[in-house]
Amino acid sequence: MTTEIRISGYGGQGVIRCGYIIGKAASLYDNKHATMTQSFGPEARGSACSSQVLVSEDKILYPYVTLPHILVAMSQEAYSKFIQNLDQNGTLIVDDDLVTPSEAKGNIKTYAIPSTRFAEEMGAKIVANIVMLGFFTAVTGLVSPEAMRKAVSTSVPERTVDMNLKAFDRGFSFGQEVKEASK
Amino acid sequence: MTTEIRISGYGGQGVIRCGYIIGKAASLYDNKHATMTQSFGPEARGSACSSQVLVSEDKILYPYVTLPHILVAMSQEAYSKFIQNLDQNGTLIVDDDLVTPSEAKGNIKTYAIPSTRFAEEMGAKIVANIVMLGFFTAVTGLVSPEAMRKAVSTSVPERTVDMNLKAFDRGFSFGQEVKEASK
Repeated sequence: MTTEIRISGYGGQGVIRCGYIIGKAASLYDNKHATMTQSFGPEARGSACSSQVLVSEDKILYPYVTLPHILVAMSQEAYSKFIQNLDQNGTLIVDDDLVTPSEAKGNIKTYAIPSTRFAEEMGAKIVANIVMLGFFTAVTGLVSPEAMRKAVSTSVPERTVDMNLKAFDRGFSFGQEVKEASK
Repeated sequence: MTTEIRISGYGGQGVIRCGYIIGKAASLYDNKHATMTQSFGPEARGSACSSQVLVSEDKILYPYVTLPHILVAMSQEAYSKFIQNLDQNGTLIVDDDLVTPSEAKGNIKTYAIPSTRFAEEMGAKIVANIVMLGFFTAVTGLVSPEAMRKAVSTSVPERTVDMNLKAFDRGFSFGQEVKEASK
């Protein structure tokens, strides 16, 4: 079973780093296989950008994302651009201060977090993507929180590790609450 | 002709973003084809991280980097890890305050810039990767500076666009001088 994930937002939000951290966590610390691929087709035009990650128990032979199972959207433009391409039984994760999803099609399950606001409350808007990663970890259960914390620690500037881990934990706790509440 | 590029450094230096910007510039603004791929093998362990980009005149069928033609190294550890894998006729680009290359093997051509120091002089160490991108653009001639500047503008947080373009231009000018001097 291979899970396809797309992380999307606008340039500068750190969505590429999010993809990188998920891939690193899954493969280096969780013993799975992962690849991250960017193809720069027409979908890379405009300010919406995205990062595609495959996570699998087995070796990945074909690294392109075809129909993501999980879409993370951190901007309305990114949401509009990529929602049509989400699996009908997939999972949508949004920053609900930045994205207003239209009515969900099929059996898409939506999870929402004000990740940018949480980051601002922590005095560091720039870690919104890491708050989102924590939330992603809690609601998807795809990669262990331990692996993700290790991958975060080794993928951000050293002096920002504490702040990033705090951001991760904030998103993770909130995700656990949301997950619990939606059972 | 496909050119394979590896950008490497330590976590948090923005090497993934560099790869992303090169790929975006080449494909969206320079009419070439590009892919960026991360595979998270054992080489992703430790603090050295790298981003692989392929740039081609033609459609890219096989997105994995096999033997890079260009290696950008922004840390000694990354240099040591990836230098063995550089094409013998390839190009090595380093931040020479951070990397001391051993004697070059084969016909490897080396270009050096104190990109981190330049960034610090500009009051923003964080843009060292963009200084490096400007330098890369000048010495390789692989992607046009116009395309790179557009890709930089659309890939960084909006309020930092000016600073990033300034950083790009600083690296680009220096690269032109170095290129001229090494003729």
